[in-house]
Amino acid sequence: MAHTTFLGYQGMKAHLVRAERSELEDWHTAIREELQEVEERLLEAIGSDVPAVFDLSKHLLSAGGKRLRPGLVVLSSKALGSADQTRVTSMAVTVELIHMASLMHDDVVDHSEFRRGRVTTNAFWGNKLSVLGGDCILAKAFSFLARDGDQRIMRVISDMTIRMSESEVLQALCERDVEGWRKHYWRIIRHKTAGFLSACCRCGAILAQASPAAEEALAAYGMELGMAFQLTDDLLDIVGEPGITGKAIGSDLRDGKVTLPVILALDSMTEPERARTRALIEKDDLSSEALEGLCSSIRATEAPEMARDCARTYAERATALLAKLPPSSARDGLGLLASEMIYRIS
Amino acid sequence: MAHTTFLGYQGMKAHLVRAERSELEDWHTAIREELQEVEERLLEAIGSDVPAVFDLSKHLLSAGGKRLRPGLVVLSSKALGSADQTRVTSMAVTVELIHMASLMHDDVVDHSEFRRGRVTTNAFWGNKLSVLGGDCILAKAFSFLARDGDQRIMRVISDMTIRMSESEVLQALCERDVEGWRKHYWRIIRHKTAGFLSACCRCGAILAQASPAAEEALAAYGMELGMAFQLTDDLLDIVGEPGITGKAIGSDLRDGKVTLPVILALDSMTEPERARTRALIEKDDLSSEALEGLCSSIRATEAPEMARDCARTYAERATALLAKLPPSSARDGLGLLASEMIYRIS
Repeated sequence: MAHTTFLGYQGMKAHLVRAERSELEDWHTAIREELQEVEERLLEAIGSDVPAVFDLSKHLLSAGGKRLRPGLVVLSSKALGSADQTRVTSMAVTVELIHMASLMHDDVVDHSEFRRGRVTTNAFWGNKLSVLGGDCILAKAFSFLARDGDQRIMRVISDMTIRMSESEVLQALCERDVEGWRKHYWRIIRHKTAGFLSACCRCGAILAQASPAAEEALAAYGMELGMAFQLTDDLLDIVGEPGITGKAIGSDLRDGKVTLPVILALDSMTEPERARTRALIEKDDLSSEALEGLCSSIRATEAPEMARDCARTYAERATALLAKLPPSSARDGLGLLASEMIYRIS
Repeated sequence: MAHTTFLGYQGMKAHLVRAERSELEDWHTAIREELQEVEERLLEAIGSDVPAVFDLSKHLLSAGGKRLRPGLVVLSSKALGSADQTRVTSMAVTVELIHMASLMHDDVVDHSEFRRGRVTTNAFWGNKLSVLGGDCILAKAFSFLARDGDQRIMRVISDMTIRMSESEVLQALCERDVEGWRKHYWRIIRHKTAGFLSACCRCGAILAQASPAAEEALAAYGMELGMAFQLTDDLLDIVGEPGITGKAIGSDLRDGKVTLPVILALDSMTEPERARTRALIEKDDLSSEALEGLCSSIRATEAPEMARDCARTYAERATALLAKLPPSSARDGLGLLASEMIYRIS
């Protein structure tokens, strides 16, 4: 019964692995120089004469990451013609700083979580330095915005940040609460992830002095892309390879996050099975074995494939929106990015 | 020997109590209507359709507070003539939101602190909601700045926020480290408190389209005032009345903060006494009795009176700077505020 739905779990994994390398490199290569510049400015931006602030930020910066948000700023501005490259780079740095600050604040844990092993991510710096270091990085991001001085960009970013932090609160409140997640899942992923990616695209468009229609198309593209991105992220928590994703299977479940594949899996179960699974999910202190069993029972349903279909739909909608932009290599890059979303494995 | 230095601890306390009421009410009364408006706008500003975000902010807002930062914005703009009152109110709301966010983030505690009772401030909401709620409030503050659109104000506030969070990191790193505090004390209080108060005054001046000289005078006034404010705050931790200050005596020491009266007291002790006191301060888990003993031994030195002299010097420098402004009731209000700094008891 396990792993046999649609093209099936194993087939899906093979498909993901196949699509891995070449395309992932593509959108980066389209803007390699720009991203290199962003990387150098990022390193400058986190400079501080309080060594711990620099160390903390450097640690996070060195951990790498896809630089998806800076990439979207650069690709969006480039897709619409010429923009002041210094401003584009500074905007790209700004969004990555906001992302870094949000990662630092995500690392803050409650007392209860020390028991569940989440402390490992946080142990080195501690809650206090995570929150204060994050504040510092966030303040730097707003300082970049202030120096750029574009009022619309500032509004786009600060409004996005409000919605993002509200949805983070919502997510924290829904912890280990299946009904809460069922009710708020779409809002959470829309505001936490998709809204941010959309804002990156919109700011790129604003810097390129895009027409209102082009700006809206790019903002909508970012939103659909972000939904596909988060849906895949949530899926990888259940079906991903820990060696590739870099996080243990079921990490979201362990942290009390009940994502779409889980919600869909619950829906497909018989009543006794559902009650048992739900009780497990809502349990505060799952063992690794129980967690693996839980993920395995979710993989045995059609839910992963349904969630992937859902991600694919969003990615296709993102792609379709690009037809509203003039052809360019940057537009091709945005197209590749959208198709990579559903095939990504980390 | 105890409480007999200069006018002495008891004399000082009597003095503080005497100066309490009438003057404290004065600077508020000078701008009562404006502050009322700020209060209403603050309540609107924290609105959110995520009820927990509103509850969290409302809880903090209802706890009151002096509204010192909004007061400085209003008084500064008023001291320099006419400014757009809507913008002044919005700026006053902004600085109070930033202050609220910083209080929420101060509430985030490390694992070790759960043992020391600091959890009481944090127990109700938990670390996660404190940090995410604070982020939300901070994002709202920046949204206000974006809507106002003054680029200089945005730079003043974001630069101040960077320095403030850097000094918060420095403070966290110095926890329970006497030498660290001795080295960084002045920088910490300058950037954590004085820089913020200075920024409030400067923004008020900018909104009133002040001359560069008047703007600098007000910014300098805010800096000196902030030093006096923080020095008195630190002093009250050792000599204050818990029933009036609202926090237990020695709370800073318990949290690992080594402030000026403590540093000066250590300097005045004999070597064996100093070694013993220092060991106590650096101890991770002080009992209430040990803490009370520690504060009592500090009160037995000339350090509290010396720290108070230091605060008085800053307050006098603040007052002197006001001579550079034209006479007005708002300028009188700023003068009262400065003299209240050294007499305040909470």
